[in-house]
Amino acid sequence: MKHAIVLLSGGLDSTTTLAIARSQGYETCALSFDYGQRHRRELEAATKIAESFGAKKHLIAKIDNHIFSGSALTDDVDVPKSRSEKEIGAGIPVTYVPARNTIFLAYALAWAESIGAGHIFIGANAIDYSGYPDCRPEYMALFETLANIGTKAGVEGARLQIHAPLLKMSKADIVRKAVELKIDLTLTHSCYDPRPDGRACGECDSCRLRRKGFDEAGVKDPIQYARPVAP
Amino acid sequence: MKHAIVLLSGGLDSTTTLAIARSQGYETCALSFDYGQRHRRELEAATKIAESFGAKKHLIAKIDNHIFSGSALTDDVDVPKSRSEKEIGAGIPVTYVPARNTIFLAYALAWAESIGAGHIFIGANAIDYSGYPDCRPEYMALFETLANIGTKAGVEGARLQIHAPLLKMSKADIVRKAVELKIDLTLTHSCYDPRPDGRACGECDSCRLRRKGFDEAGVKDPIQYARPVAP
Repeated sequence: MKHAIVLLSGGLDSTTTLAIARSQGYETCALSFDYGQRHRRELEAATKIAESFGAKKHLIAKIDNHIFSGSALTDDVDVPKSRSEKEIGAGIPVTYVPARNTIFLAYALAWAESIGAGHIFIGANAIDYSGYPDCRPEYMALFETLANIGTKAGVEGARLQIHAPLLKMSKADIVRKAVELKIDLTLTHSCYDPRPDGRACGECDSCRLRRKGFDEAGVKDPIQYARPVAP
Repeated sequence: MKHAIVLLSGGLDSTTTLAIARSQGYETCALSFDYGQRHRRELEAATKIAESFGAKKHLIAKIDNHIFSGSALTDDVDVPKSRSEKEIGAGIPVTYVPARNTIFLAYALAWAESIGAGHIFIGANAIDYSGYPDCRPEYMALFETLANIGTKAGVEGARLQIHAPLLKMSKADIVRKAVELKIDLTLTHSCYDPRPDGRACGECDSCRLRRKGFDEAGVKDPIQYARPVAP
């Protein structure tokens, strides 16, 4: 059986990625991160999702958040709301966390090599996304090269592969894929700024991209929004 | 003033690297890691060294050691002793920690971008070294490329640079450079398996490489060894 590490934030994209890995026959270990993010509800979501997909292990790894500063996802900076599609697509937003995917993939690589897994799945998407530089195809390809020349497993001939199956899918495509794979979408959590009762705000970039995807796919989003109609 | 992050383990190589960065006019922030390593004395050494070099900040960042297994530096595996130079040079030893430099550099990159530093110094060495794949020149070059395409700073035109000034120096060259830069070598700690009283074992690969360097440079190593004469 092929062994894979799947990066799992608990959002729509990473959950769909886990479902894809499972549907392709991989035995999966799910890896989530506690990096002091404000939207900690995603860790609860990730735990339930890992269980529901029969992940062999689920590790919530701590990242020392002293190395981050200046991001709206970790610091006390306002999460931008009600931005248009054009605004979301223009430039790198304040929700960017420095080198986040590099740290996530480095941890995944260490864990993969430690347990003898040859595959890493990441739900990065470069179509309906927030403009993060570490979500682009060239970044993923380069990290795969690095993984193979920078590890004992790679040097000794194992071919470590980074899989980003959503990279070129639209959000609507991802919703359709999630439905096709019978994911319980009530488990997924995408909001950058959830209400204390757990409801998604409905207005942050992540909520807006998610709602647009469901709209375009003609699928009803089953999660609760604090603001029921998209602004 | 140019700002740099310097990876600082507290050993001869990283201390010399910090001294080189300072001698080249960089304002430095030192970054050490607590990853559950058995030889924790290196963190005490790093703290004293960062102070003695006037590092602006010294951060000991925690790495979640659940992602590592199977290495003699983190697990209960015997550290190899009294290996010949030929044995040390042949293959990747059990002291290899999966993807360690990738994690170290990923953290350094995140911190660098967070505080606006454009330079990262690492004391990697590919001559008198333990055969780790993530100490090689091609690895360092690739990580620099990754740093520039995978970060907001890089995409927006800052040129992030990875400096590995010891990469092609012999251990004897490093000792000579350390002496030239007037490093207090009693502060440095290289041993993989120190005695409870803090003395270096004198027999692990790291001790043997260090002793060979001092011998070849004709410099007396001022640290205490449990085994005074090299085996």
